[in-house]
Amino acid sequence: MALIVKKFGGSSVATTEKIMAVAKRVLDEKKPGDQVVMVVSAMGDTTDELIELAKGITKEPYRYTREMDMLLTTGEQVSIALLAMAFKTLGQPAVSLTGPMVGMKTDSVHTKGRIIDIQPERVQEELDKGNIVVVAGFQGVDPAGDPVTLGRGGSDTSAVALAGALKADTCEIFTDVDGIYSADPRVAKGARKMKEITYFEMLEMARLGAGVMQPRSVEMGQLFKIPIHVRSTFTTKPGTIIREDYTMEEKDFEIRGVAHDEKVAKIAVLGIPNTPGIAHEIFSALAKASVDVDMIVQSIRNIEKNVTDMVFTVAIDDLSVAKDVVDKVADKLSAIAVLIEEDVAKVSIVGAGMLGNPGIAARMFGALSSKEINIDIISTSEISISCLIKSSCVKEAVNAIHDEFFPNGQEQ
Amino acid sequence: MALIVKKFGGSSVATTEKIMAVAKRVLDEKKPGDQVVMVVSAMGDTTDELIELAKGITKEPYRYTREMDMLLTTGEQVSIALLAMAFKTLGQPAVSLTGPMVGMKTDSVHTKGRIIDIQPERVQEELDKGNIVVVAGFQGVDPAGDPVTLGRGGSDTSAVALAGALKADTCEIFTDVDGIYSADPRVAKGARKMKEITYFEMLEMARLGAGVMQPRSVEMGQLFKIPIHVRSTFTTKPGTIIREDYTMEEKDFEIRGVAHDEKVAKIAVLGIPNTPGIAHEIFSALAKASVDVDMIVQSIRNIEKNVTDMVFTVAIDDLSVAKDVVDKVADKLSAIAVLIEEDVAKVSIVGAGMLGNPGIAARMFGALSSKEINIDIISTSEISISCLIKSSCVKEAVNAIHDEFFPNGQEQ
Repeated sequence: MALIVKKFGGSSVATTEKIMAVAKRVLDEKKPGDQVVMVVSAMGDTTDELIELAKGITKEPYRYTREMDMLLTTGEQVSIALLAMAFKTLGQPAVSLTGPMVGMKTDSVHTKGRIIDIQPERVQEELDKGNIVVVAGFQGVDPAGDPVTLGRGGSDTSAVALAGALKADTCEIFTDVDGIYSADPRVAKGARKMKEITYFEMLEMARLGAGVMQPRSVEMGQLFKIPIHVRSTFTTKPGTIIREDYTMEEKDFEIRGVAHDEKVAKIAVLGIPNTPGIAHEIFSALAKASVDVDMIVQSIRNIEKNVTDMVFTVAIDDLSVAKDVVDKVADKLSAIAVLIEEDVAKVSIVGAGMLGNPGIAARMFGALSSKEINIDIISTSEISISCLIKSSCVKEAVNAIHDEFFPNGQEQ
Repeated sequence: MALIVKKFGGSSVATTEKIMAVAKRVLDEKKPGDQVVMVVSAMGDTTDELIELAKGITKEPYRYTREMDMLLTTGEQVSIALLAMAFKTLGQPAVSLTGPMVGMKTDSVHTKGRIIDIQPERVQEELDKGNIVVVAGFQGVDPAGDPVTLGRGGSDTSAVALAGALKADTCEIFTDVDGIYSADPRVAKGARKMKEITYFEMLEMARLGAGVMQPRSVEMGQLFKIPIHVRSTFTTKPGTIIREDYTMEEKDFEIRGVAHDEKVAKIAVLGIPNTPGIAHEIFSALAKASVDVDMIVQSIRNIEKNVTDMVFTVAIDDLSVAKDVVDKVADKLSAIAVLIEEDVAKVSIVGAGMLGNPGIAARMFGALSSKEINIDIISTSEISISCLIKSSCVKEAVNAIHDEFFPNGQEQ
């Protein structure tokens, strides 16, 4: 007997046929005595349709975030009603509960709420009555009693947090891929599915561009020590389990995976005085504008004139804001020029195994140089190494690095 | 300064354009210092669309009433979000609140909930902050915290009950007609709009087929002594105020109006023994099957054999259930036959003024006989007289009776 939280995204419940299929699948897999909580998103394009509707009132509906949350939370409410009904038509007692009803307490930052507490008594009560409990993902309730949505990746976060609060045995995230791969399988021919990965490594993979899981839900799993099983909606094969530690026979992974991110841009501020405080000047201005800066290199342009260049990367979505900020600071610092490059990409290797394994970086650079791929910036963290390269080389780079570290194609 | 509750139905908020028009209209009419609560229904055909969606899961979604309520309550939630947003784009502070959020407490009879209490503190708080409060009609929350819909006419009931709980000055019901008429204006050429009508008379009109207001909301108005102003969505002219007593210069109304109801059927059980208890036998069986019986006549068929006929009417929607019940009882009583007539209709006159005014009934029968319309059954209440006639004669009958009591066409 186990308590399992299962999360299905919008594409898995896009039509009533798909909702029936999800219900049947869950019942097929359910063992006698298992307690099951379902967390679901809005059906298919519902959220986009609701946003379109709001645009009939105003071109900028997100100026009214409270009312957007009131509007958008209806999407999941429709899904849970239909899925609970589907279970019942199959003879399985079930009950639908909205985010507020499961005690999902959030702050009041509408459209980007953060969970501050969960009081899941009602969920446990309904489970104990023999119900499958169908919960609206992506939503909670603030101290005033108003509905709040959790922003990007919110349904995954709901599911993992609820699993934590219920002390569930596992949280299964059903998605359109069948697990976490050592590299994006659409890019790397040899990419292989992992059986397990640690929260720590998964977070670093996600931060560096591996798109399957939003970091928020992985952090939530880490906080509550809930194993997160990422698996396919379309098959019953096991996927990848994200957990605290490997449970398998110890293996000496050199690295866990190769990540890449094409949604980056490079900004170079050329010819600024090399005096104390200039880094602070630039990066505090960017921080004020909520722009995250990633890779940073400072290099001397002219040692006699004591003039330097400052080069760094930002997410492509932040580029226009960043450019405005940097242009102003550059003027103030009498910089020679500000250059922007958008045709760049970041490739990274991730793995706790690289700690105390000094040959790893050299092998990565060697793989790139063997394909004559030029490295523009290098940055490292405790468990990752990243290189900025031309975006046209991404596919070749990911394959070269992956082949270096994963020379054969078995599942890990 | 006044506290006004305004209710707009689904056709008034069917599109975002109409929602904007409602917001503008309400702001145009709002006097400085007025506190305004809006109660709205789901947009246009939303409720029907949601029911269709549920039919993708099961042909009989209403077997799952709790989940239907979870599903259907999203309809009003979409309307209130958009309408609150509309007010804000016009510079008017506004806030949307669901039924549960306004403290609309109901019993747990899903899809047919009854209001048991209202705790509208949040509404008053938001009004006091200067907001227009936009409330989802048709919905409340049961003691378990589950959403419950109020059934037919539910949004009107929400509005009037909320007006009562807030001690509002008035409750305005916006509809596609511009008030209550002395007869259905689609039928009676001379029908005239009333300025006022009492709850008592309005309830009798509604019971006898006048369709503008559901009896539940009128009863609620009577309970809380809240004047209900029934008026048009499309014009700013005053409509009809339903209230405890007439405030106008006393007028000697003979009758207040003519109602008609074509949704009735006649059942005749012929040739049953005229012994004590046969009426009880038939009507208690119908009561058990939740069939309301309206007009009843018992007449002697054969005085020597002591055999009688029992004739009565039921709502057309109950006919098939009623027929099954009556057939069984008739068998048991060895009745000669059970006859059903569906081409019948009821015309009625209503008015407190007929008390102690014995000529009224005779004038009604006279009006019918002058058109050679045969009366099948007559029934009376304290403030009404009804006649069952052939449904093909309804229009002529309503006009003849109306002309008799309202010989000229002024507004009352």
